[in-house]
Amino acid sequence: MLGIIELLGVVTFAFSGVIEAHRRGMDLVGIFAIAFVTAFGGGTLRDLLLDRTPLLWVAEPGYVLLTLAIAFLGTLALRSGFFYINESSIILPDALGLGLFSAVGTAFTLQMGLSPVIGVFMGVVSATFGGVIRDVACNEVPVIFRRGQLYATCAFLASLVFWALQAAGADYGLAVSASILVAASLRLWAVKNDVHLPI
Amino acid sequence: MLGIIELLGVVTFAFSGVIEAHRRGMDLVGIFAIAFVTAFGGGTLRDLLLDRTPLLWVAEPGYVLLTLAIAFLGTLALRSGFFYINESSIILPDALGLGLFSAVGTAFTLQMGLSPVIGVFMGVVSATFGGVIRDVACNEVPVIFRRGQLYATCAFLASLVFWALQAAGADYGLAVSASILVAASLRLWAVKNDVHLPI
Amino acid sequence: MLGIIELLGVVTFAFSGVIEAHRRGMDLVGIFAIAFVTAFGGGTLRDLLLDRTPLLWVAEPGYVLLTLAIAFLGTLALRSGFFYINESSIILPDALGLGLFSAVGTAFTLQMGLSPVIGVFMGVVSATFGGVIRDVACNEVPVIFRRGQLYATCAFLASLVFWALQAAGADYGLAVSASILVAASLRLWAVKNDVHLPI
Repeated sequence: MLGIIELLGVVTFAFSGVIEAHRRGMDLVGIFAIAFVTAFGGGTLRDLLLDRTPLLWVAEPGYVLLTLAIAFLGTLALRSGFFYINESSIILPDALGLGLFSAVGTAFTLQMGLSPVIGVFMGVVSATFGGVIRDVACNEVPVIFRRGQLYATCAFLASLVFWALQAAGADYGLAVSASILVAASLRLWAVKNDVHLPI
Repeated sequence: MLGIIELLGVVTFAFSGVIEAHRRGMDLVGIFAIAFVTAFGGGTLRDLLLDRTPLLWVAEPGYVLLTLAIAFLGTLALRSGFFYINESSIILPDALGLGLFSAVGTAFTLQMGLSPVIGVFMGVVSATFGGVIRDVACNEVPVIFRRGQLYATCAFLASLVFWALQAAGADYGLAVSASILVAASLRLWAVKNDVHLPI
Repeated sequence: MLGIIELLGVVTFAFSGVIEAHRRGMDLVGIFAIAFVTAFGGGTLRDLLLDRTPLLWVAEPGYVLLTLAIAFLGTLALRSGFFYINESSIILPDALGLGLFSAVGTAFTLQMGLSPVIGVFMGVVSATFGGVIRDVACNEVPVIFRRGQLYATCAFLASLVFWALQAAGADYGLAVSASILVAASLRLWAVKNDVHLPI
């Protein structure tokens, strides 16, 4: 079940990169690069900061090929004009991925014996910095830094919940599921009601 | 004394990120992120390039919480309208931090037995690349790359002075103090007289 | 012979950074920084991702001084007005460097026992990401992501040819030479005939 959500998260994050790159008229090189940094940039940055090796996609090169396939097929689908797909179409899977990646990033950090503060920080970095790098590479101010609907805040609460449940002795599967539930429900609620941070 | 200047430097660098992010209308997520990369981006990049672990703020998570507090309180202060604070208000503490971080970055590199060329290079990276990452994330050409008043040049001379004094046998405290003095006096002189590099 | 092409590649990549930074009115600090990231950014990113240490220019600080000399002399040459130099002037050496850096990046990765997929991926990253970082630091969408004349594609085919020849038992010199030939001839043909990726 978690494996399915992970795959769904990676595909969704990559596809959000395809949408953004396609909108800006990039060719396949740009679309693949943006899809890749969106899907793997957050986890890669976390692992560089923590000196964890090898990186997920270096150890499992199938992810590189999968992202290439998503870039190729996604571009054909968007260009065909048969589909009308934009960010709104992927809010649900994106929100599930957001929760999962927060939990996994926090889990990896806590497993290294680091402080809960760093655990939660790395959970948020894992889940959100792929999108930050995507926006910087597309020459925009990162959308999560602007006054958008709650996004990093959902990752923050999901990471916090994961840590609290683990600290309370809950098993991994339960803690991850709770993180996903928290991130996804808060994110969907924020999008539906246009909720922003008060400051 | 050096501990006080370090704290002052971190707070000032973080606060310069808060000013920049607040000016661009970011919310707390963006303000915290920009404050953090401004304060810790230079040292983090240096440590990634040198493969030094763990990173300062990973080992001392109090810095993460401190930056969060600065982002939060700084934002409230700027929004309250009671204070009129901009870059000019922080030129002195920023110049002190510039000198200290140059010296510390050079010291860490020389301690690894690396060449003085790399020592001085890393001194400048430590002191200035937080601001470079801040500007890139804010979607601007980094201010130190434009024809501004001397800044990286002050870090360069401070790093050079640190290396020369250490090579001549001066003790650490003296070499660091001289670096801070060189960077700060050159920086203040350049700002006062609007001095730029000739090329 | 390969040593000469490597030096030529580094000088050319650095000089393309000088041209770009000079065009945007940067001072020597910006010109040196952009020249450096253009020449060494791709290889540095590859080594950070693969956790290879030490970095080339950390181990051989002469490269830092060489880049500084290129930035200084290149700026004087461009400002003197005696030379009219732009990207078109450096297409041939740039194309040779593109092929060499693709081959070398692939070789380093395969030597670590990693998959051919990662080998080819890192070949392309080594050869092209210096330019990507240059463009991001200059506040532009990276030129290789836009619908330009084939560039990353040349690096991709050069990396693929290197891997195939090594896998078939060809010696290192032959495989590198073939990579350079493939990248350079495809690149020159694409520039001459304005060839772009179909998607």
